[in-house]
Amino acid sequence: MLRGNALRRCFSSGSLKNVTEELIPKLESILGVENVKTSASVREHYGHDESHFRNYPPDVVVTPQCVEQVSEVAKFANDRRVPLIPFGTGTGIEGGVNAIRGGICMDLKAMDEIKELSVENFDCVVQPGVTRKALNNFLRDTGLWFSVDPGADASVCGMVATGASGTNTVRYGTIIDNVRNLEVVLADGTILGGTRGKGRRPRKSSAGYNLTQLFVGSEGTLGVITSACVKLHARPAFISAAVCAFPDVKSAVQSVVETLQRSIPIARIEFLDSAQIEACNSYSNLNMAKAPTLFLEFHGSAESEVAQQAQFVEDICHSNKGSDFKWSTEQDEMNRLWTARHNAWYAALSQRPGRRGFSTDVCVPISHLARVVDETRKDIDASGVFGTIVGHVGDGNFHCIFCVDEEDPKERAAVQQLSDNVVKRALAVGGTCTGEHGIGMGKVNYLKEELGESTLNVMKALKRTLDPNGILNPGKVLDM
Amino acid sequence: MLRGNALRRCFSSGSLKNVTEELIPKLESILGVENVKTSASVREHYGHDESHFRNYPPDVVVTPQCVEQVSEVAKFANDRRVPLIPFGTGTGIEGGVNAIRGGICMDLKAMDEIKELSVENFDCVVQPGVTRKALNNFLRDTGLWFSVDPGADASVCGMVATGASGTNTVRYGTIIDNVRNLEVVLADGTILGGTRGKGRRPRKSSAGYNLTQLFVGSEGTLGVITSACVKLHARPAFISAAVCAFPDVKSAVQSVVETLQRSIPIARIEFLDSAQIEACNSYSNLNMAKAPTLFLEFHGSAESEVAQQAQFVEDICHSNKGSDFKWSTEQDEMNRLWTARHNAWYAALSQRPGRRGFSTDVCVPISHLARVVDETRKDIDASGVFGTIVGHVGDGNFHCIFCVDEEDPKERAAVQQLSDNVVKRALAVGGTCTGEHGIGMGKVNYLKEELGESTLNVMKALKRTLDPNGILNPGKVLDM
Repeated sequence: MLRGNALRRCFSSGSLKNVTEELIPKLESILGVENVKTSASVREHYGHDESHFRNYPPDVVVTPQCVEQVSEVAKFANDRRVPLIPFGTGTGIEGGVNAIRGGICMDLKAMDEIKELSVENFDCVVQPGVTRKALNNFLRDTGLWFSVDPGADASVCGMVATGASGTNTVRYGTIIDNVRNLEVVLADGTILGGTRGKGRRPRKSSAGYNLTQLFVGSEGTLGVITSACVKLHARPAFISAAVCAFPDVKSAVQSVVETLQRSIPIARIEFLDSAQIEACNSYSNLNMAKAPTLFLEFHGSAESEVAQQAQFVEDICHSNKGSDFKWSTEQDEMNRLWTARHNAWYAALSQRPGRRGFSTDVCVPISHLARVVDETRKDIDASGVFGTIVGHVGDGNFHCIFCVDEEDPKERAAVQQLSDNVVKRALAVGGTCTGEHGIGMGKVNYLKEELGESTLNVMKALKRTLDPNGILNPGKVLDM
Repeated sequence: MLRGNALRRCFSSGSLKNVTEELIPKLESILGVENVKTSASVREHYGHDESHFRNYPPDVVVTPQCVEQVSEVAKFANDRRVPLIPFGTGTGIEGGVNAIRGGICMDLKAMDEIKELSVENFDCVVQPGVTRKALNNFLRDTGLWFSVDPGADASVCGMVATGASGTNTVRYGTIIDNVRNLEVVLADGTILGGTRGKGRRPRKSSAGYNLTQLFVGSEGTLGVITSACVKLHARPAFISAAVCAFPDVKSAVQSVVETLQRSIPIARIEFLDSAQIEACNSYSNLNMAKAPTLFLEFHGSAESEVAQQAQFVEDICHSNKGSDFKWSTEQDEMNRLWTARHNAWYAALSQRPGRRGFSTDVCVPISHLARVVDETRKDIDASGVFGTIVGHVGDGNFHCIFCVDEEDPKERAAVQQLSDNVVKRALAVGGTCTGEHGIGMGKVNYLKEELGESTLNVMKALKRTLDPNGILNPGKVLDM
């Protein structure tokens, strides 16, 4: 009997959908033979991201070396109506790169230059092969850093395409707030030198329509992002971290609300429920109390400033029945803590080996957060399915992490039902089905209810305008 | 001989361009007779903003009371191809509301409800008649405030339409960063209940294309904004303000760069050149040293935090030859200072009574700011024209304020030349022709050079998609 990977390979062995006689030779003439791959193993590698969605291999994988090659491939794909799917690191979790209609997967990792660092302007231009860790390593001695941190070592441009955010959002913003300019190749191969004009990097602009933010979060369906000018931040001179356990979700969330109301510029404020703490204890060899817990981080330009922020928040947490407010300024201890938080996804998965991860991603107004998390926890418990809850609670964004046995249709249905339920709960209180993972193939069907038909129609009209032949990552974001 | 207002009235007495037999009766049937005005004085009142651009009166001014009326008017205007120009407070300075092709001016002031304040979520929904001061008055006892402050008491939705920012941007962001959701009426009358879905207000979202930010800064050319859900911030518990004079522009700007590099969360950092200081001294009855000067403001949750920020910045300023670092936590003294800064525009104008204001608005990477300001000052001095420089220097954004005698063609040409020169300088170093005032009618011709033809073509394609008949504020932003 086929299980796991073997089964996924079986799923993926469909016929090649878009291979004509000219396709491969033409791509080879543009990119060189060595940059065009059609073996089954390569195609399968590029047919999925880190999620539970089934593998949909592309017909061919190409590796452009420069924007001109991206443009030529797009022009050809557009002329011949062949789907084109940009690929960063494959660390998404909504099936955003799965080639559901086959076509050309464009792996952008070879375009990995970090260009035009400007320390005085707090920005930097990166090509799509640059990951956030590579960028931060490069920046190590500059006093600057790139703040957007979704956990995985995603490519910066991939994060732009997805509309990613992560743990530092509450102070430093999402990727939406951290992009100054984008170079984009359109469906017909046109190179937009810059959504704000080629080489421009003003800190703000009101010159014409905000194309930058239109391409942010478009998930490869409106254009291929071939470089991004991103904001950098001054590396904080002092950092401290803290952990605080609570008797219930409500007390933890109330502490967050009060922290925000006090205007304390907290850098990170993350929630992990008891099940997630248990998973982290086991995966990262920790010994935290099994209770709803906040992980916090404070940044400042003076030691006393950071200490004062921590003191304010400690007082707030205590007044909300928080206990064990442990804080540290030791680099090793902070690393241990935040590594555990970053590994939450893998920690949850390790509790049920051999299964695939399935994450929800709702974001709700903070006034409803405690209740929605509470109801969701009860729903999971009642279902008998294993699942943890972890959240960027300062943003009202939380994830349920499930482990799915793909061969157990009852479990798959139960997880899908839990996911539908949490989306329903989020939409009912003015929230969204996705705070940071994007729509991909997983959430296409929720969009109509979330946005309403008129708003969805505008998005479809924009898609038709920018990609009239529908070649760019078809079937993602919108049902078209 | 005609001068000033009389001359402008003369300019504006063109024939009515779009008045058919059915126009006025139809509008009256939608809005009621009392909300449809065609007198010359009313039309002229709505034919201009606060800038030097000539008066272009609309054919008729209507005052809708609800979004359904906005929709009905748009549908009718679209069917009959009559221009439709949304009007907020008329405090723009790029001629954004001037009805250059006549048509229907839609004054939105009657829709002035503040709805759905949510203290816990730090947001609030406002109709287009709500100004920023009205909103902040309303919020007075909530512990929250709306941060975007362009000086004038603009309407919040007008600021959204313009992509405004102002003095608090360096810490709290532009209006782009402070909008959660928009209700928009499209050209054909379709009501988008919410660019993020009706009634939704998550702190972040990656659900589909970012229509919110597409409408921000679209200056009424893509839709009529009929309500906005805007972010609020916790009112800082402690505030202090300071003033510091410098021997030259470069020293002042270098202090700003170092302040940002130290990650000091400064709330405001504004630059005024010697000419502007002189104008403020005279207009606001102050006695500041006639030198390039920084106005600074610090916000914090503790007195010591604010004091420490101020101390850090004072040290930085002194190391850059700044003198007279005067700081205050007295409300009266701070008000006096910031009122003077807010009145900079009127102070400059008061130096040449009877003339009209003309403002430039370039924004450049901070690394080039000192040189661009310096060259611009020398250019103004060499021209013999009176002009001051004032800037949101933490953003790289500065304005030259000129006073134009409209009947002196030589002076008008000289000012236009100075404006062209500063734009040329900004574009040459990767900046923009407009940081926060928008394109209006004043900067349409700079866009091609700034953005490049391909990017401009994408904007035009989006305009055609959303407004195929070109009725929405025609001739603004794009030359179409």
